[in-house]
Amino acid sequence: MKNYLKNLVEPNNSKRSKRFAFFIQFLIILSVITFSIETLPDLKPQTRVVLNAIEAFCVVIFTFEYVSRIFVADNKPKFIFSFFGIIDLLAILPFYLSFGIDLRSLRLLRMFRLFRLFKLVRYNKAMKHFAQAMIAAKEQIILFMIITLMLIYFAAVGIYYFENEAQPEHFTSVFDSLWWSIVTLTTVGYGDVYPITVGGRIFTFFILLIGLGIVAIPTGIISSSLTKAVEPSSEEE
Amino acid sequence: MKNYLKNLVEPNNSKRSKRFAFFIQFLIILSVITFSIETLPDLKPQTRVVLNAIEAFCVVIFTFEYVSRIFVADNKPKFIFSFFGIIDLLAILPFYLSFGIDLRSLRLLRMFRLFRLFKLVRYNKAMKHFAQAMIAAKEQIILFMIITLMLIYFAAVGIYYFENEAQPEHFTSVFDSLWWSIVTLTTVGYGDVYPITVGGRIFTFFILLIGLGIVAIPTGIISSSLTKAVEPSSEEE
Amino acid sequence: MKNYLKNLVEPNNSKRSKRFAFFIQFLIILSVITFSIETLPDLKPQTRVVLNAIEAFCVVIFTFEYVSRIFVADNKPKFIFSFFGIIDLLAILPFYLSFGIDLRSLRLLRMFRLFRLFKLVRYNKAMKHFAQAMIAAKEQIILFMIITLMLIYFAAVGIYYFENEAQPEHFTSVFDSLWWSIVTLTTVGYGDVYPITVGGRIFTFFILLIGLGIVAIPTGIISSSLTKAVEPSSEEE
Amino acid sequence: MKNYLKNLVEPNNSKRSKRFAFFIQFLIILSVITFSIETLPDLKPQTRVVLNAIEAFCVVIFTFEYVSRIFVADNKPKFIFSFFGIIDLLAILPFYLSFGIDLRSLRLLRMFRLFRLFKLVRYNKAMKHFAQAMIAAKEQIILFMIITLMLIYFAAVGIYYFENEAQPEHFTSVFDSLWWSIVTLTTVGYGDVYPITVGGRIFTFFILLIGLGIVAIPTGIISSSLTKAVEPSSEEE
Repeated sequence: MKNYLKNLVEPNNSKRSKRFAFFIQFLIILSVITFSIETLPDLKPQTRVVLNAIEAFCVVIFTFEYVSRIFVADNKPKFIFSFFGIIDLLAILPFYLSFGIDLRSLRLLRMFRLFRLFKLVRYNKAMKHFAQAMIAAKEQIILFMIITLMLIYFAAVGIYYFENEAQPEHFTSVFDSLWWSIVTLTTVGYGDVYPITVGGRIFTFFILLIGLGIVAIPTGIISSSLTKAVEPSSEEE
Repeated sequence: MKNYLKNLVEPNNSKRSKRFAFFIQFLIILSVITFSIETLPDLKPQTRVVLNAIEAFCVVIFTFEYVSRIFVADNKPKFIFSFFGIIDLLAILPFYLSFGIDLRSLRLLRMFRLFRLFKLVRYNKAMKHFAQAMIAAKEQIILFMIITLMLIYFAAVGIYYFENEAQPEHFTSVFDSLWWSIVTLTTVGYGDVYPITVGGRIFTFFILLIGLGIVAIPTGIISSSLTKAVEPSSEEE
Repeated sequence: MKNYLKNLVEPNNSKRSKRFAFFIQFLIILSVITFSIETLPDLKPQTRVVLNAIEAFCVVIFTFEYVSRIFVADNKPKFIFSFFGIIDLLAILPFYLSFGIDLRSLRLLRMFRLFRLFKLVRYNKAMKHFAQAMIAAKEQIILFMIITLMLIYFAAVGIYYFENEAQPEHFTSVFDSLWWSIVTLTTVGYGDVYPITVGGRIFTFFILLIGLGIVAIPTGIISSSLTKAVEPSSEEE
Repeated sequence: MKNYLKNLVEPNNSKRSKRFAFFIQFLIILSVITFSIETLPDLKPQTRVVLNAIEAFCVVIFTFEYVSRIFVADNKPKFIFSFFGIIDLLAILPFYLSFGIDLRSLRLLRMFRLFRLFKLVRYNKAMKHFAQAMIAAKEQIILFMIITLMLIYFAAVGIYYFENEAQPEHFTSVFDSLWWSIVTLTTVGYGDVYPITVGGRIFTFFILLIGLGIVAIPTGIISSSLTKAVEPSSEEE
């Protein structure tokens, strides 16, 4: 019995294990789509019933998977407190908690169902590498994040000084200016806030010329460490 | 006769073949421009007559070219079901189909005329390389597309949670939030939807700092595989 | 006399030649600033008088420089029809032409004064290298420009098909859609035109995911050939 | 006594020195946050009292630190006129000056408190490297900044010529067009100004295709020199 389950839930080259892995991945995608459809307004009651049935079915299978994994694990506490053990628990917990909870906190609880997406990491080798690469480049990323945040803060204070008097509704405080700062320096530029004074525009001019190079660095580090992380993966297997 | 046509339609260094290739390319560009002009509103009836005449002329020549290519092909079924065989057929089919069809489906049919653009690939070596490079990097691109799509989905769910109550008309469901997600993470930032709550803005702040690096990867892979694809092309010939 | 002028206008290490070069550069910048100020509305008549005086002074010196260069050139026709010979002429011609011309064409003529900016290239070694690099990478740039233009055109036709019915005022024809196409694929995203139909948004989604990588290539080629062009310049001198 | 202070304020491996450095960094962050909160409108008087108390406390400590550093320096004038000496002075000066100054200039004076952020550079090795890298790449950056500025100016003049008549309120003069130019070429694209004439749009089309590659260079140089600057830092210590 234990061997049968072990063969089923732990990755190996047997046909049964591969089919089970594929089935779980299908359920993850299915439950994510179900989750998205549930957010649509004006759903018919029948549709809700179907969605709830799918959700319940997914949770049952995920619970079976979680319990099986604990059952077959050699070191049970180690699995329970491992990354995937916690993710597997978080994937089913919201469903069970929702019975004993009032409606208002339900929405946040439902969001937690999205942790199921992380269950996919188990089946995707590239994403494992990706996670490892992020951890490896962690130090460099944090360091440049600090420099980037300082630049964003500096830009926010500067624009606050120039624009606060002209547009007190948009640049009310440094915190409001930070929104302008991030939207501008990432070149998103929604157009909800922008400088209108001559001083503010000249300041934006120089901040953009210099700042884009600094904001681009964390982006570049993440990009290159991810690219490196995937390249060797094709050789290994 | 067959040899004459073979010399004409199949690429070789003879003057006649080169002139024919140039003529076909000219007709492709001409018919694409004709197509664009036809979309202009308030065209005079005379203009329409001229455009239709040009279109008919192009189709006659393309039909002659298609039939000739079948005629001179050693392995006729192989050509007919090859990439270029299908493209050549799709380039003329809409014209002939439009006679027996009611007006409402005409518009979609007309769009198919654009497949003529792909006929250009035959004459452009770099674009052949380009197509090959895309096929070669297919696996890597698909893999990162999945990670990118997961990030975009994750951002959409997050912003839905923060903004749905404040802006139910823009962030109606996760599907609507996906539009915000793609427009923001590619830094296009039209400004039709953007977060207005403090939570949504802080969420956007962090998603932008981290997400730009992830979205940049498929872009980078396509870019670099294309650049590689063209470099050797200059040496070969 | 000829030797004196040759020493003055032709670049060498003498103090006099360096001072003259610096003086000419100063006048170029001055006349560009003068040009910008002239575009300000509601200028006082006195200001206009001063600006015109500065302009006349610059033209006199530039004319003296141009005539001197012809005078000292060993091969006069070669200089006159060289890049810098033509630029030097274009820098002064608008001023002289403006006497015999009616007011309406004056505005375009005034724009030609901007060719003076190109006179700066003579004094800036990096910009010479830059110009050479652009010429060297010309073929590659043209090739990818064609692919980029095809993508932009393809995106324009696609969005026209999806959005024309819903927003006939913004996506009137393929030509209007091209404006959306370039603004979106370069991620500028002004927000004056954007898709509102579900089909158009899904189309934009995929065009952005794939298209950004293609549009980034000409940018990358120009960037890298420019960077290469400047690096050796520091060693040479 | 002098030795005691020297051990405290000058970086060494003693526990006391590390704690003092950490304490100063904490105060810098604290005073920056205090500064940001002060810009919030509608602050309660009690909050203001607390903020002022924190500010006064920070200034007292910073003054003690500054005086100690002068006291323990072997070459006192050298320290006072060094980069960090001036930064340390600027960090406390605004507070003392604010006593003898009327209210209207207070706002600018308060901004100067932000120089405290630069005090962090002393404690952050990566930022020291960063500063050195910027100085090393200074020449290249200036050179490409000139080319970039010329392109931005050229784009501004071009769009002024095309759009001035159609939108005199947005493209009033070349100076107003410069705002459009920087916002477009950095792909921020707020959407407050954009071309509406056919000529202006075609001009924007080509400026975007070519210009993005040029504007990307200073960004790339800053990015790469920063990345280089941090890499060796992990080896050194």
